[in-house]
Amino acid sequence: MPAMGFAETFETLRSACREIHQLRTASDLLGWDREVMMPPGGIEARSEVLELLARLEHERLQAPAFADALAAAEGQSGALAPDDVARADLRELRRQVDRAQRVPAALAGALARTQSLAQHAWEEARAAADFGRFRPHLDALLRLVRDRAACLGHAADGEAWDALVDDFEPGATARSLAALLDPLAARQAALVGDLLDTGVAPDPAFRRLRIPVAAQAALCRALAERLGFDFARGRLDLAVHPFTSGTHPGDVRLTTRYDEADLFDGLYSTIHEVGHGLYEQGLPAGRAGLPSGAAASLGMHESQSRFYENHVGRSSGFWRAIFPTVRAVCGEALGGAGPDEAYRAANRVARSLIRVDADEATYDLHIAIRFAIERELVGGRLEVADLPQRWNAAYRELLGVEVPDDRRGCLQDVHWAAGLFGYFPTYTLGNLYAAELASAAAAELGALDPLLAAGRFADLLAWLREKVHRHGARTSAAERIEAITGRPPSIEPFLEHLAARLGPLHGRRSPR
Amino acid sequence: MPAMGFAETFETLRSACREIHQLRTASDLLGWDREVMMPPGGIEARSEVLELLARLEHERLQAPAFADALAAAEGQSGALAPDDVARADLRELRRQVDRAQRVPAALAGALARTQSLAQHAWEEARAAADFGRFRPHLDALLRLVRDRAACLGHAADGEAWDALVDDFEPGATARSLAALLDPLAARQAALVGDLLDTGVAPDPAFRRLRIPVAAQAALCRALAERLGFDFARGRLDLAVHPFTSGTHPGDVRLTTRYDEADLFDGLYSTIHEVGHGLYEQGLPAGRAGLPSGAAASLGMHESQSRFYENHVGRSSGFWRAIFPTVRAVCGEALGGAGPDEAYRAANRVARSLIRVDADEATYDLHIAIRFAIERELVGGRLEVADLPQRWNAAYRELLGVEVPDDRRGCLQDVHWAAGLFGYFPTYTLGNLYAAELASAAAAELGALDPLLAAGRFADLLAWLREKVHRHGARTSAAERIEAITGRPPSIEPFLEHLAARLGPLHGRRSPR
Repeated sequence: MPAMGFAETFETLRSACREIHQLRTASDLLGWDREVMMPPGGIEARSEVLELLARLEHERLQAPAFADALAAAEGQSGALAPDDVARADLRELRRQVDRAQRVPAALAGALARTQSLAQHAWEEARAAADFGRFRPHLDALLRLVRDRAACLGHAADGEAWDALVDDFEPGATARSLAALLDPLAARQAALVGDLLDTGVAPDPAFRRLRIPVAAQAALCRALAERLGFDFARGRLDLAVHPFTSGTHPGDVRLTTRYDEADLFDGLYSTIHEVGHGLYEQGLPAGRAGLPSGAAASLGMHESQSRFYENHVGRSSGFWRAIFPTVRAVCGEALGGAGPDEAYRAANRVARSLIRVDADEATYDLHIAIRFAIERELVGGRLEVADLPQRWNAAYRELLGVEVPDDRRGCLQDVHWAAGLFGYFPTYTLGNLYAAELASAAAAELGALDPLLAAGRFADLLAWLREKVHRHGARTSAAERIEAITGRPPSIEPFLEHLAARLGPLHGRRSPR
Repeated sequence: MPAMGFAETFETLRSACREIHQLRTASDLLGWDREVMMPPGGIEARSEVLELLARLEHERLQAPAFADALAAAEGQSGALAPDDVARADLRELRRQVDRAQRVPAALAGALARTQSLAQHAWEEARAAADFGRFRPHLDALLRLVRDRAACLGHAADGEAWDALVDDFEPGATARSLAALLDPLAARQAALVGDLLDTGVAPDPAFRRLRIPVAAQAALCRALAERLGFDFARGRLDLAVHPFTSGTHPGDVRLTTRYDEADLFDGLYSTIHEVGHGLYEQGLPAGRAGLPSGAAASLGMHESQSRFYENHVGRSSGFWRAIFPTVRAVCGEALGGAGPDEAYRAANRVARSLIRVDADEATYDLHIAIRFAIERELVGGRLEVADLPQRWNAAYRELLGVEVPDDRRGCLQDVHWAAGLFGYFPTYTLGNLYAAELASAAAAELGALDPLLAAGRFADLLAWLREKVHRHGARTSAAERIEAITGRPPSIEPFLEHLAARLGPLHGRRSPR
């Protein structure tokens, strides 16, 4: 029997990947259904089904046959061109298999169980604003998270936290992220102080117009279509906590929510999720199930949602382009308000307690606090018992606000309760990458504000498809940004964007 | 190590059953999603996911470990009480395992592939009213179906078709069914002739009132709740071909459709599916995943939908009870029509071409034709090439109608294209069992018409829960009917019901 060529060997590997991906697709869709469609009575049976599917997926990733198929393909990859996309697949699969094999099954099981209990305890603790109820669970979870980090290991000049961020932003380290996030926090804090010191503030009244939920829903669906979301390959539904489920470029599901007393809650949730959804719809369908067919990283994913939410959705041009639609759908409820009132309200800056409600200028200060604290927790430099005090001091220092209780303090986010340490910085990476992309798009397509005012959303989407979406995870997110801009990601485009947009709205002269 | 007791041995078996059931649950929910929620772009990826889940389920059912667990439990079952429900589980699992093992994997695979192609060809052939396009596919499929029947075997005094009906109505045979269906067809044909000869016919105008779809949807949801469907454990959505998905008593999903020009299309589809859904919600949740936690048979399932559709939904009492709701929701669109007009329109009898549109008096004549023909096809006594001619002759003889084309003839149903031979008679069993249950309920609760007019839907549901639902598949459907009525299922209650309801509407005096 002649030896198999690379194509054949790779096809064997790909079949195994496909099966793992199909199990994950089933899980993701049933997870979406749980949040969006399932009647309450289904929860117990659903949890069991999801547990089985997760186990089957995990077994396949850890099966010797999968490692063998990967090794066989690696052994024959020498003849591949340096930029062959299969190299990216092999590299990323190797990373995943090595990481999966380094964590003993008993530890993975303990983590899953402890996380499930911790998340439940967090829900109760948050509702009661009682950190004490959550504390022993976070303690137990953190011990296991540290064990897992120890199994995964990190570079000699790095730290334990590095092993965890690799789940979300492959290639990033605490050091590489701190080099961006630390100076960003200092300069954003200064910028926010400067803006608020002017005593001039955009009027937020527009977001409080009372628009019936049905009208908001019609508006948001129209906006999603206008921005390029393809409803033949996706849906838009309601969920308490909006999210996007993308199992395949042909089936991408956005969720959002509406509040009659807050037009922007639903509108910007929708535009944010549309950004995620456009990325998912633009991924290379031909490589679905392979790493190269997936998003480059969480940071890159967030860059797409933030690009649409902030660079598109909070721009003056956007509001001018869509206002005829807003007027047609909302009618009388608008009173005399026009696109300028909407634009101003969308760019209100305020020091606040809650991350998910934060504006574009202060959002990353919330992230900086979490980034610092979770490194201390994972590194054992901060005791769980001291978390609330540490949190409140950080908010006082960086945001200048007093935390009145833990519900509005260190209990506000689900991430740590869900075992997600290393996740938060990807939000700021998203903001940085979005600004890099907006700057590059403007250099190639012309200034974005007039382009948006002219309703050229399709041109913008085509540019993102070409520069970002179609590449999937062929390179890391940082490498892709560098390939587009010619230099490594930096904080400057984002700071320039904030100054250029927010300065004039606060009575500052435009920087140029 | 001491030998395991029955409880432990059974728990091992039950775990295996649970896993199979969970895989089926995932398939069923993703199948529901495909029909109800999925955007068109998702179809290809979805088919692959469903194929994988079906394969995993099949592998587990055929695994030696499963057969071993079953044999071990059987070996220890001697000490069980004669009526212990575990005996029913072992009996039914043995039947399933034996049947699965008798069919070679290659044949099962060929059947799945051929069925998929045949169904696709059928869709095209039906649209084009061109039997020739479907014929070679049905030929190929039928050869495999006969092979499968040969593998499964049948009693010495039976026929090949018996092996197939066992998929849908365990314990039934062509002979046992013919003993009911043949005399039923003769007497129904006579009854229909008698009714139509009177020249008196209920006025069908009510169903043609133009009620906006939103009002129909509100009405149907209110009716579902009124009849006892629990929306905390279920949903009601839209689908082109209405169906019910019941994966667990806590998550039961009805689907229906609405036609502005035909109030009854949506209304009776909904009530029919509510009947299925109430059964699913009433099954013993504590035995979910075991055979005894499932419906007794397709015939019993259909008896629940037919009970609600016909004995409840087409009764005079029902229309009187719900008419205030109908009036509140539909308002002016009703003109001057009242419950009597609705009742009359709901009981219009007509000889027709299409099974799914048939009324209560003629429906089983459509089934009788299919029952006869599919036995001839499976038994090799009818060539596929001669099917249209045979079909058209049967419609001429039994229903007195001329079939104008194969679309409205032998291409109208998907069943044979989907490989479902042996399924059709369960529809008539459903009608017979429903009449048995209605008769028994009236004997215990009092005449149904005044009970329904008084809106005592909860009493009726409680009776069905007690007599049928909670028993799951602990006994066969026929045994359960006999346990309720004290005698084996017969055609008399159904014929009496038809005469009692339809006679007076056609100017005949009530039989008593």
